[in-house]
Amino acid sequence: MSETSAFLAACRRQRPSHRPLWVMRQAGRYLPEYRALRAKVDFATLTRTPDLAAEVTLQPLRRYEMDAAILFSDIMTPLQGMGVDLTFEPGPVVRQPIRTDAQIDALPALVPERDVPFVLETVRLVRAGAPRGTPLIGFAGGPFTLMCYLVGGRPSKEFGAARSFLYAQPDSAQRLLERLGDAMGEYLLAQATAGAQALMLFESWAGLLAAREFTRFALPAVRRALAIARRAGVPLIYYVNQGAALMEAVADLDADVIGVDWRMDLAEVRRRLGPGKAVQGNLDPAALFAPAEELKRQVAAVIAAAGPAPGHIFNLGHGIWQDTPPEAVARLVDYVHEYT
Amino acid sequence: MSETSAFLAACRRQRPSHRPLWVMRQAGRYLPEYRALRAKVDFATLTRTPDLAAEVTLQPLRRYEMDAAILFSDIMTPLQGMGVDLTFEPGPVVRQPIRTDAQIDALPALVPERDVPFVLETVRLVRAGAPRGTPLIGFAGGPFTLMCYLVGGRPSKEFGAARSFLYAQPDSAQRLLERLGDAMGEYLLAQATAGAQALMLFESWAGLLAAREFTRFALPAVRRALAIARRAGVPLIYYVNQGAALMEAVADLDADVIGVDWRMDLAEVRRRLGPGKAVQGNLDPAALFAPAEELKRQVAAVIAAAGPAPGHIFNLGHGIWQDTPPEAVARLVDYVHEYT
Repeated sequence: MSETSAFLAACRRQRPSHRPLWVMRQAGRYLPEYRALRAKVDFATLTRTPDLAAEVTLQPLRRYEMDAAILFSDIMTPLQGMGVDLTFEPGPVVRQPIRTDAQIDALPALVPERDVPFVLETVRLVRAGAPRGTPLIGFAGGPFTLMCYLVGGRPSKEFGAARSFLYAQPDSAQRLLERLGDAMGEYLLAQATAGAQALMLFESWAGLLAAREFTRFALPAVRRALAIARRAGVPLIYYVNQGAALMEAVADLDADVIGVDWRMDLAEVRRRLGPGKAVQGNLDPAALFAPAEELKRQVAAVIAAAGPAPGHIFNLGHGIWQDTPPEAVARLVDYVHEYT
Repeated sequence: MSETSAFLAACRRQRPSHRPLWVMRQAGRYLPEYRALRAKVDFATLTRTPDLAAEVTLQPLRRYEMDAAILFSDIMTPLQGMGVDLTFEPGPVVRQPIRTDAQIDALPALVPERDVPFVLETVRLVRAGAPRGTPLIGFAGGPFTLMCYLVGGRPSKEFGAARSFLYAQPDSAQRLLERLGDAMGEYLLAQATAGAQALMLFESWAGLLAAREFTRFALPAVRRALAIARRAGVPLIYYVNQGAALMEAVADLDADVIGVDWRMDLAEVRRRLGPGKAVQGNLDPAALFAPAEELKRQVAAVIAAAGPAPGHIFNLGHGIWQDTPPEAVARLVDYVHEYT
């Protein structure tokens, strides 16, 4: 694998040609060309149709000099492949929430080539079509994050059903998490085999847990997923939202990069993680609504906190908001590359 | 003021007779007697009818040996008193979101005896009726938290409208926050004058901000509120949800107690706040769904992390969930008092 990619070099804490940048959810609703496509095709169909999913993945790369592509898909897509009956309304709604051992045991293992072939085909199409040899990041949802939707049945602010499930049925929760960890490990590995050059676990909701429960429940499943994905030989990224109390817990994960939200100071994150980890983040998605000069100051502040470019991948601290002006993203890319 | 109250002693970091305990949102939907009342009266009417609001405030004190009462009201109630047109559906929905300087300047100052006399009458009734001389906590919403609803118009997971408003219209945001800070200061002071023996600012959403924006926007308004409330001569509590990256920022607030959510380790919180602050919290609300023995372990872990009783008020890290079994709260009270 060539490390002339600034993104891949930074993942490995090597000196990149410039400070790399991509944007979580960069392929999505803030782009008019995405909305034009979505006006014709529903979300689930988009994720399951390789040429359309590849097209959406590539849209931001045509507009901006992003240093990585991120597969257009949904964290729930592999669960559909495992037979979970769910719809997007627009958040995922699971028809039969999973709360019993019988339901957990009935979840089959994921066999990606059989269950989600369209995802792997999308990966191949993106690899064939990516401009400037831009590397592609494959991804999966964090096991606890997936459990939040499976147990709760629908999105919620607190994910109370999943969180109380941990306390009320700890053995069942652990069994479900192990199964999800293994499935997501296989899913990531298959994406790399199909051509993804880095792999990322999106842990949107494990930051709702106290460190004690995170360490007891969420983390072992993450370790299972990463252990399988590690066999791919590509950089592994673990993003944890709301992780300010969890940095010590994730410091010894076998991940190359830890992604964090906008609320944490990257200098402190690096201190707490130690020198063995690269970091990814962490501009506030709201900062893209600032006037140009203020956005520039915010970018400078993130870069100053992150320190030297080896080991820092610039990103937002969370997915870009759908009402973000696309021209703000153009300015962001300019500013980050200017600071190099 | 007598400090024979364990709660008031702990607020002042004096040695209490036992480790005091109350539960955020203890007057509310998890109690069958509350639901019975709500079946007959809508929420807004309940908050505006002193004998009913006092009755609801006292309900948990009849069931459990709580060491404090918390006024039954809503953080949006004083804004209604200032003329903001809003409804509870069940979260607050503001008919005309506030986003212009003209709207901000049109917000009148709050004159509590004129604008929310029913709240002050509720305070007087609770003081007259509280069993065992249980002290009453008056409260208000944190200025940024209120701004989230005023600018956004309705509850949301990210409060993106308010957060982008900070970046897009920083001067307007500051003006609105100052106005809210002053109003909440007067509101708290009036509650103390009516008889509340401690005052608390609930900052549910300022923890969505990075420390830089929290310090620039949210904190100055909190200081204004606390400076006015301080004249009451009663303990002041500042609760900040999702505050793991904000402890250094709040350490020099003129508050006697800092309340934190369940995600933070209280030993670390005390270390970061220094010896000048008491702390309140921080059991995970989800832990009330655990079997008895596990709940006991969780209580023990919070107490062990909090350290000696002077300066620690036991509480949940967030409001109690409406589906919590009432008997779990009874066990919680027993366990906390047992550990004394």
